[in-house]
Amino acid sequence: MSAGAQDELRRRAEVLDQRDRLAFAVDRFGPPSPGPSGEPLRYLDGHSLGPPPAGAAEAVEVELDRWRQRLIGGWNERWLDLGREAAALLAPVLGAAAEEVWVGDSTSINLAKVVQAILARRPDRPDIVTDAGNFPTDRYLLDGAARCSGGRLRTVAQPTAAAVQAALDDRVGLVSLSAVDFRSGARADVRAITAAAQRAGAACVWDASHAAGVVPLDLAGLGADAAVGCSYKYLNGGPGAPAWLYVRGDLVPELENPLPGWFGHARPFDFDRRYQPAPGIGRFAVGTPAVLSLAGALPGLALAAQAGVAALAAKAADLTQLVIDAAGASLTPLGFEVLTPPRPEHRGGHVGLRHPDAWAVTQLGVRELGVVGDFREPDVLRLGCSPLPLRHVDVVDAVARLAAGVASGRHRAHRARAPGVP
Amino acid sequence: MSAGAQDELRRRAEVLDQRDRLAFAVDRFGPPSPGPSGEPLRYLDGHSLGPPPAGAAEAVEVELDRWRQRLIGGWNERWLDLGREAAALLAPVLGAAAEEVWVGDSTSINLAKVVQAILARRPDRPDIVTDAGNFPTDRYLLDGAARCSGGRLRTVAQPTAAAVQAALDDRVGLVSLSAVDFRSGARADVRAITAAAQRAGAACVWDASHAAGVVPLDLAGLGADAAVGCSYKYLNGGPGAPAWLYVRGDLVPELENPLPGWFGHARPFDFDRRYQPAPGIGRFAVGTPAVLSLAGALPGLALAAQAGVAALAAKAADLTQLVIDAAGASLTPLGFEVLTPPRPEHRGGHVGLRHPDAWAVTQLGVRELGVVGDFREPDVLRLGCSPLPLRHVDVVDAVARLAAGVASGRHRAHRARAPGVP
Repeated sequence: MSAGAQDELRRRAEVLDQRDRLAFAVDRFGPPSPGPSGEPLRYLDGHSLGPPPAGAAEAVEVELDRWRQRLIGGWNERWLDLGREAAALLAPVLGAAAEEVWVGDSTSINLAKVVQAILARRPDRPDIVTDAGNFPTDRYLLDGAARCSGGRLRTVAQPTAAAVQAALDDRVGLVSLSAVDFRSGARADVRAITAAAQRAGAACVWDASHAAGVVPLDLAGLGADAAVGCSYKYLNGGPGAPAWLYVRGDLVPELENPLPGWFGHARPFDFDRRYQPAPGIGRFAVGTPAVLSLAGALPGLALAAQAGVAALAAKAADLTQLVIDAAGASLTPLGFEVLTPPRPEHRGGHVGLRHPDAWAVTQLGVRELGVVGDFREPDVLRLGCSPLPLRHVDVVDAVARLAAGVASGRHRAHRARAPGVP
Repeated sequence: MSAGAQDELRRRAEVLDQRDRLAFAVDRFGPPSPGPSGEPLRYLDGHSLGPPPAGAAEAVEVELDRWRQRLIGGWNERWLDLGREAAALLAPVLGAAAEEVWVGDSTSINLAKVVQAILARRPDRPDIVTDAGNFPTDRYLLDGAARCSGGRLRTVAQPTAAAVQAALDDRVGLVSLSAVDFRSGARADVRAITAAAQRAGAACVWDASHAAGVVPLDLAGLGADAAVGCSYKYLNGGPGAPAWLYVRGDLVPELENPLPGWFGHARPFDFDRRYQPAPGIGRFAVGTPAVLSLAGALPGLALAAQAGVAALAAKAADLTQLVIDAAGASLTPLGFEVLTPPRPEHRGGHVGLRHPDAWAVTQLGVRELGVVGDFREPDVLRLGCSPLPLRHVDVVDAVARLAAGVASGRHRAHRARAPGVP
């Protein structure tokens, strides 16, 4: 990239930072740690694991103290309420009512719960439609749920309303897609697909893991049947923080949790022999909640709630635009292809860049440049634009460092593959 | 109780404390907190939520720091290994090999996984046998699993080998019971029942939540097909700490996880479109593990492993005997009935005491006497004898305080029922 183009991008970012309505949130994450050469780290992996906001460690430590001091009394004093508090904070971010949101377990388990519950109501419609590029865990679980109901998982090539519509018939009981594609960052037309599914008599279940906290989801407004997602990406809930699920209010009493555990009972501590589901969304609970992980997630959820979904989405749009523009100026000349849609309303919070050496470039960033993105098979570098912890100049700096590194050929020293999280 | 009988019990407890091979562990829990009147708390609720051992808070704080400093790098550096480390610590306590134990999710979810997986192999045997007094969440989940397979849940009145044997026929694919009854503390004849089930062609799955850490389970030795349990009772893992599951080694490759999520994939980070289960016990993973809760459980598991199952079981036998003897001398004259079997090999780690005013007595203990037991519907006071945190004199003191309180009639002021955990 020309020095002039870089300067212009940086000035644009500085102006955006001066006007940033979420600057207060950036401050809550503290200054960046030093990278491998001492330069401030540019952490563009908040779409995978968000950094800890102020108060996250303290929120966990309070519960550790409560465990020590109050012992079993901690349940009545605080722990039984944590899930409802998390749901109340998260609901407006999802565009839902608090009574439509439940927090706990993992995204995978929550997807299985809502999908199995919906399929069970429609034994004549056991098939599920998803798209070929959906996140693997969703595909595995959907395939299992469809087969368990005597149906099959049907796959469309692209998650578009037209493709979904063409795949629907009276054997399809459910459409399940990701609201934002985990590789490209492309946003599905959630409203049109939900409407198409429902017109054809199928329910629509969204995985919003890559959307919650960067996309104005409006789940209740668009009438989605159900949705699930994690809280450790843009919601900054911490490693393995409890996931969430949403079920449209009128549907809640119609659905039976396929994992009917005691915490989903109307009166868990009556120890009834017969299962009686809680009247509301609490019926989707199963076993004892993971208190420490749940407590650690609250400050992130509270910060997202305070920011508001409009500001989150607007800043994500600006940050991703800066990355796309910077990549267009400096990375496409080096062989990168921008996978992410150019229009902000068509994308989420991360940018996917295809390059044959994407693994090595990711490693170069982490090991030498102090730029943390991540890699997805087979050839995608992802740069996450998390609106709460990042300044606009951070993402411009990050792309500039990567471009300089690749231009110098230094990524070639990082081609060896290691096991673990890529 | 006569002063002489009380003195004798206390002297017996003091002698046992002097010889206690687990005295080192008692020290790891620190001195008891003060009770409501300043006297040292006698916490006899370790069968519900164990107290925190030394190092539990620190273990979580290390991971909170890692989240802040290492961000996504925490997964490769440490978090991906936490589950395996927990399983390796727990395996000898269960009498199993590390490759047969997996730690994560909740007991309820783990029970659903192994039960559904076993039933799926035997479509001709969709029925399940359990006992009428089994823990509610087990009954709910077993009922759901049996119905989902086209069968039904059959209930025997008592969890004995004879009763189970009489209920078996060629439609029964699975027997599932609790190794220790959550109300009475009675231990099932795990070996005889497992053998009876297997002779009749059914698998046997144990819920060992109330047994792990106080009963020499020897799961592999007796050839149980599978078992599940929590880690927050006698294993002192913390509120809502991840649960565990055991599957007999030769059965692992035969079973398909009914919740096939990405963490149970052979290569989760290849993002394969097709599900390929991990070759070993790791196939029972589903979604992202709850890191903070898992980290907090490790010190408790390590302490149980260090103590060893023989010493744990021996001390639990001594502690429960002291409670039974003290209750016989001082509480049965006040109208209490000891529900727990007199022979140590027939019981677990808690003593169940029936009394029409059990709720009020429990409340009196917590609110006035500094004796924390717990209450189970409809009329059972439970006193837990957790061998790691308790001294022998503690349980004798606790019963003496309760007996004096009830003799004075002060429990009558505590009859009003409150919602929440009883």
